[in-house]
Amino acid sequence: LPTDETSLATLSKHVPTQDRVPKIREKIDRVGVAGLKTSLKLTAGSQETPVVAEVDLFIDLDNERKGIHMSRLVESINDVLSKSAREPKECFETIGSDILEELRKRHKFGRGEITIRTTLLLRRFTPVTNKPTDEPYDVAVKIIIDGDEIFKNLTVKAIGNTLCPHSLETTRGKAHVQRAEIELSIEAPIKEKIPLEELIEICERSFSSPTYTVLKTVDEAAVVEEMFRNPKFVEDVARDCLKLTRNLNFRGKVRIRVVSYESIHKHNAISEIERVFE
Amino acid sequence: LPTDETSLATLSKHVPTQDRVPKIREKIDRVGVAGLKTSLKLTAGSQETPVVAEVDLFIDLDNERKGIHMSRLVESINDVLSKSAREPKECFETIGSDILEELRKRHKFGRGEITIRTTLLLRRFTPVTNKPTDEPYDVAVKIIIDGDEIFKNLTVKAIGNTLCPHSLETTRGKAHVQRAEIELSIEAPIKEKIPLEELIEICERSFSSPTYTVLKTVDEAAVVEEMFRNPKFVEDVARDCLKLTRNLNFRGKVRIRVVSYESIHKHNAISEIERVFE
Amino acid sequence: LPTDETSLATLSKHVPTQDRVPKIREKIDRVGVAGLKTSLKLTAGSQETPVVAEVDLFIDLDNERKGIHMSRLVESINDVLSKSAREPKECFETIGSDILEELRKRHKFGRGEITIRTTLLLRRFTPVTNKPTDEPYDVAVKIIIDGDEIFKNLTVKAIGNTLCPHSLETTRGKAHVQRAEIELSIEAPIKEKIPLEELIEICERSFSSPTYTVLKTVDEAAVVEEMFRNPKFVEDVARDCLKLTRNLNFRGKVRIRVVSYESIHKHNAISEIERVFE
Amino acid sequence: LPTDETSLATLSKHVPTQDRVPKIREKIDRVGVAGLKTSLKLTAGSQETPVVAEVDLFIDLDNERKGIHMSRLVESINDVLSKSAREPKECFETIGSDILEELRKRHKFGRGEITIRTTLLLRRFTPVTNKPTDEPYDVAVKIIIDGDEIFKNLTVKAIGNTLCPHSLETTRGKAHVQRAEIELSIEAPIKEKIPLEELIEICERSFSSPTYTVLKTVDEAAVVEEMFRNPKFVEDVARDCLKLTRNLNFRGKVRIRVVSYESIHKHNAISEIERVFE
Repeated sequence: LPTDETSLATLSKHVPTQDRVPKIREKIDRVGVAGLKTSLKLTAGSQETPVVAEVDLFIDLDNERKGIHMSRLVESINDVLSKSAREPKECFETIGSDILEELRKRHKFGRGEITIRTTLLLRRFTPVTNKPTDEPYDVAVKIIIDGDEIFKNLTVKAIGNTLCPHSLETTRGKAHVQRAEIELSIEAPIKEKIPLEELIEICERSFSSPTYTVLKTVDEAAVVEEMFRNPKFVEDVARDCLKLTRNLNFRGKVRIRVVSYESIHKHNAISEIERVFE
Repeated sequence: LPTDETSLATLSKHVPTQDRVPKIREKIDRVGVAGLKTSLKLTAGSQETPVVAEVDLFIDLDNERKGIHMSRLVESINDVLSKSAREPKECFETIGSDILEELRKRHKFGRGEITIRTTLLLRRFTPVTNKPTDEPYDVAVKIIIDGDEIFKNLTVKAIGNTLCPHSLETTRGKAHVQRAEIELSIEAPIKEKIPLEELIEICERSFSSPTYTVLKTVDEAAVVEEMFRNPKFVEDVARDCLKLTRNLNFRGKVRIRVVSYESIHKHNAISEIERVFE
Repeated sequence: LPTDETSLATLSKHVPTQDRVPKIREKIDRVGVAGLKTSLKLTAGSQETPVVAEVDLFIDLDNERKGIHMSRLVESINDVLSKSAREPKECFETIGSDILEELRKRHKFGRGEITIRTTLLLRRFTPVTNKPTDEPYDVAVKIIIDGDEIFKNLTVKAIGNTLCPHSLETTRGKAHVQRAEIELSIEAPIKEKIPLEELIEICERSFSSPTYTVLKTVDEAAVVEEMFRNPKFVEDVARDCLKLTRNLNFRGKVRIRVVSYESIHKHNAISEIERVFE
Repeated sequence: LPTDETSLATLSKHVPTQDRVPKIREKIDRVGVAGLKTSLKLTAGSQETPVVAEVDLFIDLDNERKGIHMSRLVESINDVLSKSAREPKECFETIGSDILEELRKRHKFGRGEITIRTTLLLRRFTPVTNKPTDEPYDVAVKIIIDGDEIFKNLTVKAIGNTLCPHSLETTRGKAHVQRAEIELSIEAPIKEKIPLEELIEICERSFSSPTYTVLKTVDEAAVVEEMFRNPKFVEDVARDCLKLTRNLNFRGKVRIRVVSYESIHKHNAISEIERVFE
């Protein structure tokens, strides 16, 4: 193989810059593109829903080559997604795996990972008037191919609230409340069945109360009553979320991060749990 | 004046690119640098406090010149600030005006504006235990020279909370509470005396309660009681803030923006007032 | 009308908190909800495309009432959008106007404004290999009803690049290049025909070169050649953008903001033009 | 120990809510406060520099207690920093360790970590005119106490640029350039001497060229020439950064992340290396 220092004049027609031997022979763990905005089609039942998503795609690079061919990464994304436009894929996981398989035909790698991030809107109903409301949840689906193994890393974010149990006691029925957020990530072999929707529901059930885009007066009162019935520290929210996730009964890693945007402080309260389910 | 199209070979030594006549003869309203991070020294009493600040500096450009000389803007900032390191300036307003005056010696302009953004920490005391606590507030000081006139635009941001009065009534003593934020901006002739600290205090007094970095149990209870005594919609917060600002008794424009990070919704509630005080 | 101070016990069943007379009788200029994430359906030709969008909806409030009824704002959004799911609307402008009209049936206001923000993906083709590529552009459509008049405010953001003309001269054929961004906003009576797609094209044609998600080696070379043929200061980009916008031939206001993420500095270069077309 | 369900009436005076046994007996890995803005004093030589910093402080919590006492975390931060105001500490590492030691006197924990984030301004000189310029770098210092062991995790971010080597060849002397960023993190036993300033210098030397706040025409030309002499892929930048970090000769973990804000694409190019130095 030619080295990076070899005269450009003699080489440039024959060996692409990327394929030369680098001066510093070190492996790169992840190289690729990040923040690529694209659209993909999801099917839920008979319905087909295009969504705008943000994609990161990385592969590793051995110590014998100066660079990867980045355009092949983007071509693999575009090719799979333009086919999915005609022949819709079941879910993010299939799309992610297909893009990595497509890339493998075009570019050598040992380990590859793709992350697809978007916002899902899920149908909910207000607690008393039972009105339909579509609530937003940020999700990220990462597929990792490492040699012959395939893993997935699913992350969901849900917004709810916390009502401070300590404050409720010391102030006799009054308490500070605030918006809170759970980020729940699981990493597992791809074959484990773990629907994103179930992870989102687990988060919502872990707060003092879930929240809604629209609430009539009676609904609002019901949400407030619910919060006062379920006072929770960020520690309680994380533990409840862990318990519900454990009930999903899969093998893998779990990471829970609860953020409470404290209404009595300018900073946030945080609680994190990491576990391996075996 | 040479035009942009004139042969570069003959011109480049004589007329800098910036000073040529542009193909499209249109005035530029604001051109300059943004997001320049630097440090400046403030004096409060006998104490000198360096702070890291972010600076934007813009001037206008007539329709006879292709571009401004950007390095002169940065040099003016650096020169004034390096002098201020030895000979501290009273406040942001003086530093801002000095930089614009310095720039005027180096670069022609009709209208110039500089914005200095930083975070101030102000001493507060907890409500019951009376412990000192330094609370953070984002501020932005803009100085505008327009011909012979000089104006200032002061913006402060403070974090507090709102407790919903409607909820308090309908849920009989329970209510949803949340973190809230006020952004208060005033624009006035430079000679008007309007201390940043007073604008910050006005914001804090407009919430259901101010917030603190540290609160012992008795302090926390006092803050919660305070919130329940002062239920406020975002509309109430904006009106209270306007009333207190009017008491400062200056001529100028006021803009108030209240954001409430609703604990029962995933979206925010907003209230804005704009007024001219004459 | 009862005042805010009247005994809650006697009033709460009869007059909602929002409808009482406020202590401080000041008009609120804009009050409502911000950052509400929802989905809406667009039709382009025969194709129907749902997109996730973020919505702000504000109205004014006179000095006789303590607060607005926020849930009616969100209900108006949800009702129009759930109808649009069956009976697709032509574009953002129709959806925005419909929501404001729907709101007027439910809540009194003098001035109302709705902003819908999303990311559009538009089909482009690479310069040499002519491959299709979908490029992302952030857009915001604001509809303003003020008494009997309706206005629109359209904002598009496009990413491209700038190559420094001064550097190209002084370094003899070498130059610094960087990513740049244009934000182009127009405000005009609603009846003016100004497609978002044309505003986006104007931005792209104003850079040293447009950019693409995927570029093969020959395409990349063509983009680089294009940049070196079109060296531009941020001032040039703003002036070119203004000229192309003027050609659209409408009555209204224009605001252009160019940001160049300088590759030789840590801060950004900015150029802004504001004009009224009469 | 009482359980969480025990009648509040009988308990509240005796056992704080936090100290009860939780319903779900799971350990919490990290619980505490995040985003607390404060000021601290650094000394460099004889000079004392206060900086505004953002602090996160987390501890673990065993499965026998419902919650931690958050106010003790903030008190530990405030107490150490108010002392440091009189008796300045050498550096972030000492301040961080002191806060954790102070906290240990007030609250039981097995593992504790504190992160201090701020922006440092370091003196540089322009390449030809040799003018002084203060360049900004974001840094984060994390101190981790795990039982008897103390570790540190230092992260620095520096902004520079990349010039594409492939483009330089195929376009014969022209090339696309862009702003780039390196985030370099090291984790090591606290006793290893690894100055933040050296990590920052390593980043700056790894780009195609460093960048400056102010550049006169001759300086700008020198920077452009430097970039064209050092064409680098993101892979090259990461490898060069790794080599220079290895020369520091310490035992620990290294993580390098290079982001190139591509000027020919709307997305970014990324390269990451993780290594253990033994």
